[in-house]
Amino acid sequence: MDDQLYDRVALIGLGLIASSMFWAIKRAGVADEVVGYARSQETRDTAREIGLCDEVCDTLAEAVEGADLVVLCVPVGAMGAVAEEIAPHLDPGATVTDVGSVKKAVIEAVGPHIPDGVHFVPAHPLAGTEQSGPRSGFAELFDNRWTLLVPAEGSDSVAVERLRNFWEALGAHVEEMDADHHDLVLAVTSHTPHLIAYTMVGVADDLRRVTDSEVIKYSAAGFRDFTRIAASDPTMWRDVFLTNKDATLEILGRFTEELFALQRAIRKGDGDHLHAYFTRTRAIRRGIIEAGQDTDAPNFGRTPKPKG
Amino acid sequence: MDDQLYDRVALIGLGLIASSMFWAIKRAGVADEVVGYARSQETRDTAREIGLCDEVCDTLAEAVEGADLVVLCVPVGAMGAVAEEIAPHLDPGATVTDVGSVKKAVIEAVGPHIPDGVHFVPAHPLAGTEQSGPRSGFAELFDNRWTLLVPAEGSDSVAVERLRNFWEALGAHVEEMDADHHDLVLAVTSHTPHLIAYTMVGVADDLRRVTDSEVIKYSAAGFRDFTRIAASDPTMWRDVFLTNKDATLEILGRFTEELFALQRAIRKGDGDHLHAYFTRTRAIRRGIIEAGQDTDAPNFGRTPKPKG
Repeated sequence: MDDQLYDRVALIGLGLIASSMFWAIKRAGVADEVVGYARSQETRDTAREIGLCDEVCDTLAEAVEGADLVVLCVPVGAMGAVAEEIAPHLDPGATVTDVGSVKKAVIEAVGPHIPDGVHFVPAHPLAGTEQSGPRSGFAELFDNRWTLLVPAEGSDSVAVERLRNFWEALGAHVEEMDADHHDLVLAVTSHTPHLIAYTMVGVADDLRRVTDSEVIKYSAAGFRDFTRIAASDPTMWRDVFLTNKDATLEILGRFTEELFALQRAIRKGDGDHLHAYFTRTRAIRRGIIEAGQDTDAPNFGRTPKPKG
Repeated sequence: MDDQLYDRVALIGLGLIASSMFWAIKRAGVADEVVGYARSQETRDTAREIGLCDEVCDTLAEAVEGADLVVLCVPVGAMGAVAEEIAPHLDPGATVTDVGSVKKAVIEAVGPHIPDGVHFVPAHPLAGTEQSGPRSGFAELFDNRWTLLVPAEGSDSVAVERLRNFWEALGAHVEEMDADHHDLVLAVTSHTPHLIAYTMVGVADDLRRVTDSEVIKYSAAGFRDFTRIAASDPTMWRDVFLTNKDATLEILGRFTEELFALQRAIRKGDGDHLHAYFTRTRAIRRGIIEAGQDTDAPNFGRTPKPKG
């Protein structure tokens, strides 16, 4: 294939991101062979059943041997142990990358295990859905989304460039960023919103005077958008909060500060404060639609179902 | 028409809900004539231009005279003044209803102005989008959504039944509820989620170290779902919080309590607490999809745009 960038790609962990990468790699024709590994036998069986990966390997060593690109697609908390286990089996000249939602912690956990002569280029595709597991992937997941590369200083520029071309072939826009800034930006755009959504859904679930069935029936009034976010993979998100602790706590602090100001305005009946605040937030929505990161169809273009 | 339930429906206020009602009434053929009124000349001009309402009236009095159903579709804070103004022009036997998101405050503001012989049946269609204004309506808005009727004790059962049939003809499921319970349920499923979304979007907007353009570019990681909610009409939402103060503050109190517990778990590195919490919230999402109140397509079925 003319567009081929890697001979053999090894996907470690076969969840939403890895399975989407597989279908996107096949769509783009940018690798000769894609092999996969998952720790659980059940996931490997499912992958084989649905034709996910050209070959599903039973060990980490088998998967990474001979690979010129190894992609770590496991929860952030598992990255270090996986890196340690694969290190002796990596080919010289290979590139190791990852798809973790946190970068500083991944670099600290994985970096020390990378042998000389192997390139380590951390990355983070900003794409996902509320679904998880090997069956949840689809080739279009990265189309028109951003993938952030977080190469260490002194990284091999050819390896970085090749990975950039790879992600672009998978449909993404690519930008480089340093790890600290990445972790702060993601605390704002992703980690704190997820924690808040989890919290709100938890509150609703807890409430004695409003039954579960009422919360579910009447969810269309706003709550259901929170539940989509709060349905995301629990292990992945536990690790995100444990490993991006400082930035998340900082943004949470600002969030509660603002929330208390609005709460006070409600208590005092300060309508002007509320109206001004709510007017300001509208502009951001327009920016996101203009940037092509969402649809302007009402309700995200949810199709109403006919009655009955 | 066989299915006709009212001779003349007057829609007061011509925003998202009223304009959707108009198209849904026409689709269902449940009224002989639908007239509309909006306070602003600009809105009335737009309505005439797009054929919204059989007739657009220039005064409240004109609109309600001869109507057997009057629907108040103005922000909750304006309901009392409108009710007072229309009261002398209401036909005996007519039904006055509303679509406000808060019910106790509307009943207190509107109830005293309703003349003897006129039926007052408060209602709340739990449907909406982030868009507003006379151009934002569409006939399918209420399909498969709930409309809650909140009739006072001793309401005329024939009038209540007719309004129920009307909302069912517009595509909705209908249930009755008392005002206090309505306001609490909505504080959980709608009002508090909206306030939280507004707050998170405000925090992102405020942050100096993360520029607006980064927040917008990388919004797909979770934040953009908040911005949809936070783009809703500021006047409507100001009034909701001012008039459903007690229930909103109560739910906000529970929310911050839970948030602080999760924040503490993050600070202490208590992964088990986080994982258990995040696992529990997944079940609610499944319930909402099974109840037909959302789609199970990933990302609400947003269609990814091809690159370029």
